[in-house]
Amino acid sequence: MEGLERISLPGRVAGPDEGIGADELALAARNHGMPLEALRYDVTPAGLHYLLIHYDIPYGLPEEWRLEVDGPRGPVSFDLGTLRRFPVETVRVTMECAGNGRARLRPRPVSQPWLLEAVGTADWTGVPLRLVLDEAGLTDPTTELVFTGADHGLERGVEQDYERSLPFAEATRPEVLLAYEMNGLPLPPQHGGPLRLIVPGWYGMAHVKWLRRIRPVEPPFDGFQQTVAYRLRQEPDEEGVPVTRIQPRALLEPPGFPDFMSRTRLVRPGPLTLRGRAWSGRSPLVRVEVSTDDGTTWHDAALTPEDSAHPWAWRSWTFPWTAPPGDHVLAVRASDTSGPQPPSPPWNLGGFANNTAHRVSVICLPS
Amino acid sequence: MEGLERISLPGRVAGPDEGIGADELALAARNHGMPLEALRYDVTPAGLHYLLIHYDIPYGLPEEWRLEVDGPRGPVSFDLGTLRRFPVETVRVTMECAGNGRARLRPRPVSQPWLLEAVGTADWTGVPLRLVLDEAGLTDPTTELVFTGADHGLERGVEQDYERSLPFAEATRPEVLLAYEMNGLPLPPQHGGPLRLIVPGWYGMAHVKWLRRIRPVEPPFDGFQQTVAYRLRQEPDEEGVPVTRIQPRALLEPPGFPDFMSRTRLVRPGPLTLRGRAWSGRSPLVRVEVSTDDGTTWHDAALTPEDSAHPWAWRSWTFPWTAPPGDHVLAVRASDTSGPQPPSPPWNLGGFANNTAHRVSVICLPS
Repeated sequence: MEGLERISLPGRVAGPDEGIGADELALAARNHGMPLEALRYDVTPAGLHYLLIHYDIPYGLPEEWRLEVDGPRGPVSFDLGTLRRFPVETVRVTMECAGNGRARLRPRPVSQPWLLEAVGTADWTGVPLRLVLDEAGLTDPTTELVFTGADHGLERGVEQDYERSLPFAEATRPEVLLAYEMNGLPLPPQHGGPLRLIVPGWYGMAHVKWLRRIRPVEPPFDGFQQTVAYRLRQEPDEEGVPVTRIQPRALLEPPGFPDFMSRTRLVRPGPLTLRGRAWSGRSPLVRVEVSTDDGTTWHDAALTPEDSAHPWAWRSWTFPWTAPPGDHVLAVRASDTSGPQPPSPPWNLGGFANNTAHRVSVICLPS
Repeated sequence: MEGLERISLPGRVAGPDEGIGADELALAARNHGMPLEALRYDVTPAGLHYLLIHYDIPYGLPEEWRLEVDGPRGPVSFDLGTLRRFPVETVRVTMECAGNGRARLRPRPVSQPWLLEAVGTADWTGVPLRLVLDEAGLTDPTTELVFTGADHGLERGVEQDYERSLPFAEATRPEVLLAYEMNGLPLPPQHGGPLRLIVPGWYGMAHVKWLRRIRPVEPPFDGFQQTVAYRLRQEPDEEGVPVTRIQPRALLEPPGFPDFMSRTRLVRPGPLTLRGRAWSGRSPLVRVEVSTDDGTTWHDAALTPEDSAHPWAWRSWTFPWTAPPGDHVLAVRASDTSGPQPPSPPWNLGGFANNTAHRVSVICLPS
């Protein structure tokens, strides 16, 4: 968009001593993470689930909402009442923002400054997408499907509706939903209500909110969010690798109680149970390990068995620890069948998929 | 708490070029504001209402929750079932964090770095506090009442449960509630569920969340949150002025659409209606004024009449504007019967009650 370079700059990384800027703070004040003590809930209460909204939350009355699907015989329009008459599915999904961990990278890519909290698990209810595609006659497996949201903005100089695509085979997986409920209630506006796409296993950018149009294109789709944003790159002129499925991660429910400003954790001496959650969107988890000496030694945590009812949700782990007085750094890491979380942060220009181990400083008080 | 000065420091202000630090960012990632486009809702959807949690969200099952009230004949324990059998009241309340606007002060007090979004309006349902005080025999008007929450932490070197007091006359106002529902649903954990105090007109620090005890004391109560925190001071050794009722403020629903990173607003040329909300907790509003030339000239906005059904909630205002191409700074300010929002930020060490006018940069695109 000409003349707007002064307000809509290309991506950049922060200087070595550059604190979080006013622009990053404005995003952090809007887009909130899940306070880590909420790891205790199997299903994250709606207001605690992480949120990342590229532009504004659009305003749409459920009774007036229409999804337009560009079928081979012309556009087909679905209202929510029609979508509710399709077979209903509920899928429990752990969703994570691709930028989770960005603000811990050095140098820091300047964007939404996530630390570790951009995650949540919800029960999403709706109609399997493939049934709606069938109904509209979209059955060509060589196509890519483009999903358009109602949120509109300028990003890095490009005016756009938020738009992402999926290959036909991904879009027609049985667990991919057009969701109109979250945790048994109408989908809240900030989570994409009245209607959003749910793509279990993928980072959040694929779960298009405020969905209003689906259209087929010949691959590859070259939209901004597909080819400019959400790519793993070391240099700006690289084509880059698309961000797709969630890398493995384990998080620790912070033990004890916090200091207000530093958020340092304090515990009393004696036995306690460390606990948390672990997940991966790319393959099943095989192990969670805990270190109580800042990564010098690692020990297997007890990981709950995979729940066949909820294959796309996080799993619980526990580890017994007898806290001795003094300063400690706890750490936890998960491995899936493709391997473990990496020992050092996987840096890239966009600050995506930084899944290094979670480290938590703990002071155990004198007895 | 001895030896913990290294992690639990006294309050401080940031240096002149100091960006937002890791500690402030960690608070911003947990405690979220209301995205300003949500000013469009009369009642803020629960997950969009602002949140400020001093320590961790405590975990309490509603069926096991007890409120202990220290009456003159000994402690009286109320479970939620008992509280629900008292007469039920619902009050619509606009609540704002006392620290709203803190991160816009220069120098910046280092704490939760709010810009402008720490506000929300909800329908709170529960029992009028005075009925419960009566039942427990707490009827002495010379006492002060102390409200203790279940959230526990260290703050500026002091280990504590979050605790605030109210004078008897404030606590027994008919609209002061022990609330167990928000917007018609069970009170969510992050908003103080199962039980919180609601004190219409006061800043958020008075609305004690996760309420588990009420006790009478002889005034003045000298708890940390009463005498150390939440005081207006210019110098650290001052006694300071207590923070109490919400100062007047108007906010503008940002027009047009945003740039992703700078959040600058873009509009198309032509007529549009500027709109937003205004409130005061200290006395009725008398006027809202809008400027489209960065405060050089001000014009009265149309303010909805005071709603006798919701005297503690924000009011809507509108102002017609024909946007000409170019750069603009819009501004809005409210006045109550005690006067208008101040022309420059009212600085204090804690960064409380900064209610200067809302300014919004807007670029109107060429036609």
